[in-house]
Formats: sequence, structure tokens, C-alpha cells
Amino acid sequence: MTNPLLGRNVVMEQGVVLGERVKIGNNVVIEQGVNIGDDVYIGHNTVLLRGTVIGEGSSVGCNNVLGCQPMKNSRVLHDVMEQSSLVIGKRCMLGNGIVIYAGTKLEDDVLVGDQASIRERTFIGKSTVIGRSATVECRTQIGKKCVIQTGAYITADMVIEDNVFIGPEVSTSNDKYMERSVVPLKGPHLKSGVSIGNNATLLPGVTIGPNATVGAGAVVTKDVAANVIVKGVPAK
Amino acid sequence: MTNPLLGRNVVMEQGVVLGERVKIGNNVVIEQGVNIGDDVYIGHNTVLLRGTVIGEGSSVGCNNVLGCQPMKNSRVLHDVMEQSSLVIGKRCMLGNGIVIYAGTKLEDDVLVGDQASIRERTFIGKSTVIGRSATVECRTQIGKKCVIQTGAYITADMVIEDNVFIGPEVSTSNDKYMERSVVPLKGPHLKSGVSIGNNATLLPGVTIGPNATVGAGAVVTKDVAANVIVKGVPAK
Amino acid sequence: MTNPLLGRNVVMEQGVVLGERVKIGNNVVIEQGVNIGDDVYIGHNTVLLRGTVIGEGSSVGCNNVLGCQPMKNSRVLHDVMEQSSLVIGKRCMLGNGIVIYAGTKLEDDVLVGDQASIRERTFIGKSTVIGRSATVECRTQIGKKCVIQTGAYITADMVIEDNVFIGPEVSTSNDKYMERSVVPLKGPHLKSGVSIGNNATLLPGVTIGPNATVGAGAVVTKDVAANVIVKGVPAK
Repeated sequence: MTNPLLGRNVVMEQGVVLGERVKIGNNVVIEQGVNIGDDVYIGHNTVLLRGTVIGEGSSVGCNNVLGCQPMKNSRVLHDVMEQSSLVIGKRCMLGNGIVIYAGTKLEDDVLVGDQASIRERTFIGKSTVIGRSATVECRTQIGKKCVIQTGAYITADMVIEDNVFIGPEVSTSNDKYMERSVVPLKGPHLKSGVSIGNNATLLPGVTIGPNATVGAGAVVTKDVAANVIVKGVPAK
Repeated sequence: MTNPLLGRNVVMEQGVVLGERVKIGNNVVIEQGVNIGDDVYIGHNTVLLRGTVIGEGSSVGCNNVLGCQPMKNSRVLHDVMEQSSLVIGKRCMLGNGIVIYAGTKLEDDVLVGDQASIRERTFIGKSTVIGRSATVECRTQIGKKCVIQTGAYITADMVIEDNVFIGPEVSTSNDKYMERSVVPLKGPHLKSGVSIGNNATLLPGVTIGPNATVGAGAVVTKDVAANVIVKGVPAK
Repeated sequence: MTNPLLGRNVVMEQGVVLGERVKIGNNVVIEQGVNIGDDVYIGHNTVLLRGTVIGEGSSVGCNNVLGCQPMKNSRVLHDVMEQSSLVIGKRCMLGNGIVIYAGTKLEDDVLVGDQASIRERTFIGKSTVIGRSATVECRTQIGKKCVIQTGAYITADMVIEDNVFIGPEVSTSNDKYMERSVVPLKGPHLKSGVSIGNNATLLPGVTIGPNATVGAGAVVTKDVAANVIVKGVPAK
């Protein structure tokens, strides 16, 4: 085995597995049970929490927190459960200042921009891009080759199929009662090939048909058919 | 006194007070005069700046910066003053990558999500939730049991009463002249029980009456009466 | 030469130049070729990547990542190139948790708020303010004495002239085909003295005339003349 190239002040707990030719920056913290594949790079000051798995050839920038657990106070209506490991696929690229929770999986070749965050029990498909400062909530499924642009907000319990484009600062929601009663949450369902313009607003539970386009700044209050273009407030 | 459990490379200045059973991660920086209560947990790479107070039973994640001072350049119209300590109550939960300024107070049982930031001279009431990536400006009062959702923007000089729900990516403002003249700033006033839908826009100084609801994507240009629902652009 | 005041666990690579009276916090990483002017302050846990230049009298907070390189996966349509140094002018003020790329230049007296990010090949003019959590894309020119408020999104290939005000959570775009075909990107052009209200949406390539005002929440779909006020969806 080639020795890993370790920076200064690296703190590594017991039971960590490091692949060949791994390179780790300064002040990195690696908790127990972390598994890092061959040819992985970890930037300075990044924290890899318990059990995080990083596939071969992936690159992780500086000041990230990977594998954290959900939390709650007395105001949060839904329970949170302890999650198993965060699993990051092969050849993924992660920027800087990112937070990703345990219990989530990123497939191979996913790119996550700086300062993005992704909650637990979410799945990100192969070759998808999560933009800078985008926030993805829990229990959401995102398909292959999607682009979630900078600052977009992807709510919980949402389904995004393959090859979907979501513009900058798009906003989605999943709770039409705004926490005034406890109901099952249902985010929008974006079918394959959908495009959403920047700063558009999607209401809870709407379905956007395959290859439909939503204009910039539109407010989508009901389902949109396949292959159409809608715009305005409410979107038509 | 039980010895605190200190991680590696912890830097602690003079005059720090640590309670019983405190647990501190690796690479944590604790500046002078910081006071940490019993049973507090501090995550890796977090920075506690001068004089920060953290109440018993609170938990703070990784890579946070707590207790920073405001700053200005020649373009900033309003003066900034050096602030006294940041005070965090008991049993608060803070995520990762958060920035909170000195001169602000969080009451007990407040939850602050990852990558949120809160400026100086702001008050957050008991059991309120500040969502991930939400930004709260200075001199704002937020009541008890409120939920400020992910990515919402809470302007300066705003009043939010108790039990208010603010959806994801909501935007507020306090300066109708957009810095073209120097006037007193006045943010919206949200009365008790108000609900604001995702990506809604509130103009400076509007008052939203008790238990009123603002629809997703609405633009609120004037006051809203109690108990009504408004939507659209402008909201009606 | 006065000795610099170095914190604990500072990691400094070869070929670093430090000016007089520099003060550096704990756990700071300074890579090779970094050049820090006189009287600069660097906060705890900040990472200065290869070749970053910081002008005299500037102040940089905690947990920042300065000088990073762009990245891509197989889904990103446009190539990324290795960039030369990040150059930060004199008397600049940077907050905490910020990410700025190599190949960008900040003129003197620029203020960058907490958790903001700025991509490569962007120019920020003298005395401009980039607000907290604002995101600025690559190849964008921003003039002097502008204010880009909290959470605003400034797209790539955009031109912002002098003395422009952009409100909180404003969204801009540069690709009317939303990545469905590969075309030259063109962001909005904001002439001198423009004001944009909070949460407004600007479509690709629109020009806003000198001293024009766009209302809060407006969606701007075509050019706006000088000195007028537009509002609504679409903006009129």
C-alpha cells in the first residue's frame, strides 16, 4: 500500500480505511469507521463524521461537514431518527463549505457546489449537478443528469426525474397547511426533461409533465401537462 | 468538577469558563471570556469568539463562527458599533457552518439550521426554529415558537410575533428608497399566528394582521387585515 | 521587519510573503505563493489557497476559503480552466464562511459579507458591497460603489455598472434555453444608478437603463428605459 499523503494536524479516529494514493489536507478530522477509496482528495479543515464513505477518484474541497445527523427542538413537528452512513460515489466533485447529512446517497460523477447542503435520506442520481448554495431537504429523489442551479430550494418528499433543469433560486414547497396541521408532506413531482426558470415558485404536490417548461418568476399552483410552456402568476 | 472532554488541537484563551461534562471537538478555538454551561457539546472546527455564552445542555455543530463583530466599508451608510457578547440559551441546537454575531440573544430551546446567519442586536424567542441558510439581519425581534424556513431572508428592524410561520425563500425589505436616501429603516410587522407562503415578497413597513395567510409567490405591497388570505402580484 | 503574530497550529507552505504587523488566527492554512500585505488580519480556520494576494490593511474573518479552482463533472457543458491568483485589494473587509475563486479581482475597499461566494474571472469595483450569502458567478463585471444585498444571485457574463443597488434575494439569469442547447451566455446589463427591489427576477440579456428602478417581486422580461420605474409580472 502506498502511504497516504497526510497534511498537518490531521485527526483520525480508529477504524478508518484509507485507499491508495489518498491525499488529505491540513486540520482534517476523520471520525471512526470512515472509508475513503483510492485516489481521493480531501481539502483542508474538512470534517468527515462517523461512517462516511467516499468512492474512488472523488475530490472534496475545504471546510465541508459530511455525515452529520438531523436535529430537532420542541417546535419541530416530525421526529428525526439517527441515520446510517453518508455514501458518496466514485469520481464525485465536492466544493467548499458544504454540509451533507448521514443516510443520503450520491451516485457516481455527482458535482456539489460550494455551500450547498443536502439533508438525510435523499438520493442524488448519476452525473447530476447540485449548484452552489442550493439546499435539498430530506427524503427527496433526484434522477440522473439533472442540474439544480445556484441557490435553488428543493423541498422534502419531492421527486425529480432524469435530465431536469432547475434554475437559480427556484423555490418549492410540500405543506399546503404551512404547519398549521400535521399532514403527510408532498413535494412537487418533476417528470423527465422538465425545465424550471429562475426564481419560479412551485406549490405543494404539483406534477410537471415530461419536457414541460416553467417560465422565470412563475408561480405554479396546479399540474402542468407534458411538453407545454407556462408562465405568470398564477402560471398558465 | 468533572474534567471536560477536549478534542485535539483545541485552542483556549484565558478566562474561559467550562461547565461540567462539556465535550469539545477537534480544532475548536475558544477566545477569552467564553462561558460554556454544563453538558454542552461543541463540534469540530467551531470558533467561539470573545465573550460568547452558551447555556447548559446546548449542542453546537461543526465549522460555526459564533460571536463575530459587525464590519463596514466606505459604502455602508449606517454606522456599526462594537457589540457585547452573543448569548445562547439552554438546550439550543445549532447545526454546522453557522455565523451568529455578538450582541444577539437566543432564548432557550432555539434551533438554528446549517449555514444560517444572524446579525447583531437581534432577539430570537423560546423554541423558535431558524431554518438552514436563512439570514436574519440586525435589530430584529422574533417571538416564541416561530418557524423561519430554509433560505428565508428576514430584514433588519422587523418585528415577528409569536407562532409565525415563514416559508422557504421568503424575502422581506425595510428601505423603500433602496439606499437612495438615508431614512429610518422599517421592516414588516408580522402579528401573532401569521403564515407566509414560500418565495413571497414583503415590502418595507407592511403590517400583516393576526393569523393572516400570504400565498406562495405573492408580493405584499400594503397592510393585510387579520384572519384573511391574500395572494398574487400585488397581493389581494 | 516586525514579527507577524501567528496563532496556534498555523500551517504555512514555502514561498509565502507576509507584510509588517500581520496577525493570523489559529488553524489557518496558507499555501505556497500567498502574498499578504502590511497590517492584514486573517481569522481562525481560514484557508488561503495557492497564490492568493491580500492587499494592505485588509481584514479577513474566520472559516473562509480563498483562491479555489473551478471544477466540473460530465454534466457541465462549458469547460473550466485553471485560474491564476485571486487578488484582493487594500482595506477590504471579508466576513466569515466565504468562498472566492482564483482568477478574480476585488478592488480596494470592497466588503464581502458572511457566506457569500464569488466565482472565477469576476471583477468587483472599488468600495462595492457584496452582501451576506450573495452568490456571484464567473466572468461578471461589477462597478464601483454598488450594493449587492443579502442572498442576491448574480449570474455569469453579467455587467453591473457603478452605483447600482440590487435588493435581497434578487435573481438573474443568462441562458434562455436553460441548457437545452449550448449557446453563448448573456446576463442582464444594469446601467449606472439602477435600483432593483427585493426578490425581483431578471431574464437573460435584458438591459436596464441608467437610474431605472425595478419594483420588488417584479419579473423583467424585456429592456427597461432610463429613469423609469417598472413593477409587476411581467414588469411594466
